[in-house]
Amino acid sequence: MAARRTITGFSNPLVKFLRSLRDKKHRKREARFLAEGLRLLTDARECGVLPEILVMATGREAHPLLDTLEDAVAAAGGDVVEMDLDILAKVTGKDNPQAVAGVFAEFDTRLAGLDRAAAPIWLVAQALRDPGNLGTMLRTGDAVGAGGLILIDDCADPFSVEAVRASMGAIFTQKLAMARWDEFIAWLRSGPGQLVAASLRDPMDYRAAPYAAPCFLLVGNESQGLPEAYEAQCDLRVTIPMLGRADSLNAAVAGAVLAYEALAQLGKT
Amino acid sequence: MAARRTITGFSNPLVKFLRSLRDKKHRKREARFLAEGLRLLTDARECGVLPEILVMATGREAHPLLDTLEDAVAAAGGDVVEMDLDILAKVTGKDNPQAVAGVFAEFDTRLAGLDRAAAPIWLVAQALRDPGNLGTMLRTGDAVGAGGLILIDDCADPFSVEAVRASMGAIFTQKLAMARWDEFIAWLRSGPGQLVAASLRDPMDYRAAPYAAPCFLLVGNESQGLPEAYEAQCDLRVTIPMLGRADSLNAAVAGAVLAYEALAQLGKT
Repeated sequence: MAARRTITGFSNPLVKFLRSLRDKKHRKREARFLAEGLRLLTDARECGVLPEILVMATGREAHPLLDTLEDAVAAAGGDVVEMDLDILAKVTGKDNPQAVAGVFAEFDTRLAGLDRAAAPIWLVAQALRDPGNLGTMLRTGDAVGAGGLILIDDCADPFSVEAVRASMGAIFTQKLAMARWDEFIAWLRSGPGQLVAASLRDPMDYRAAPYAAPCFLLVGNESQGLPEAYEAQCDLRVTIPMLGRADSLNAAVAGAVLAYEALAQLGKT
Repeated sequence: MAARRTITGFSNPLVKFLRSLRDKKHRKREARFLAEGLRLLTDARECGVLPEILVMATGREAHPLLDTLEDAVAAAGGDVVEMDLDILAKVTGKDNPQAVAGVFAEFDTRLAGLDRAAAPIWLVAQALRDPGNLGTMLRTGDAVGAGGLILIDDCADPFSVEAVRASMGAIFTQKLAMARWDEFIAWLRSGPGQLVAASLRDPMDYRAAPYAAPCFLLVGNESQGLPEAYEAQCDLRVTIPMLGRADSLNAAVAGAVLAYEALAQLGKT
């Protein structure tokens, strides 16, 4: 067991620091984010990512994976801290906080950090506003063996507690990049890659479209969809049938339906 | 234009009644629910469903669809009420409330109310806890031309503001039923119907499965999946490939991937 500090007061500077990470402005300034739960932190560890600070609730139940995590953090020179569950609840903003949370350094989110040949499928989201949708897209990306998620224009913060939670650990397995549209297009066209728009305008059925790896599947904003000018720059514009009254699917659902079709065609199922 | 009442105080009994509808216990007691936004209420109207009470913000922008709605509610003997936007915000619990909301009578949610022959696909969710997932499944059901959503065991309330909002109007186009598992199975087996489980256990690929109408696609709880005993009573157990670290998809995503595959096989795309 590593040496531990125990924090007993709400006014402790570390508690204030941890709470500040629920706020995007502070996350960006600190370039740190919070993830909670033994499963998520174990996923991170198994992906080779350790928290700089590991926070555990006093009175938690013992668990061998927690011991492993604690030892790994201590061995890497990280900080191991205990605090009461009610303080941890304030940190994570949950009524039922999990007994463990971690502070991680944000990842490199430059396009230059992506190896497009590393995977047949990449997910791309434009102006995606809902952190739950964003996390769900990361989770879907993990499931289809995608390389990662590229966020275009002003999206929800992938490092928010909500997005990290919805990703169910995929924040640690999927590469992330953020870029403006022009920057993304310039990067995409500098190498191989098929850009496919989930469109509400074009009549090509998504199951009839000839997907080719590396395939970049692009979904648009929850209420606006993709700008027409963006769609025009895509290699394919595909539609998912809508038989009812509604004219669109949830963005994360649309991304998943396309991703599984591309996966099937690209011979991975 | 119909006659209108104007409400100016937070303590008005109607305001208290409307706010109480954000609470499940009160919704059940009153058998009423709230829906907000001109688009949602117009969807309802076009589906032949009118609110008993139409609430509009004073100072809202005029809109022909809003006039149509107001006239329809008044003609049907409903109540048309105006209140300040800050009071409406308290009612809907949103910082940016839409300028219109409605109070609707809850629908019949008995299995006996379903006509299974009315659609080739039905969605079924067991112990689905997240109202956003529930609303998203309704929205997906609308898109694939499903007949409706059947909620098994203890699910989130489909009449919560969050579920209604996530349904994007599909709460008015999809039939809803709620039942315990035994009751559902008895009803299902009393007529034609193929029950297909989204399983994490069985090796049959979801694209190789022979779907048959009326096809009931069943997804389980967000964290537990389906009970094994429930899966054993299904006609097919199918899996969606998971190529990454995670062992499951978001429940609404899994339902959508299955639903679009069933739709394609059943010849509707």
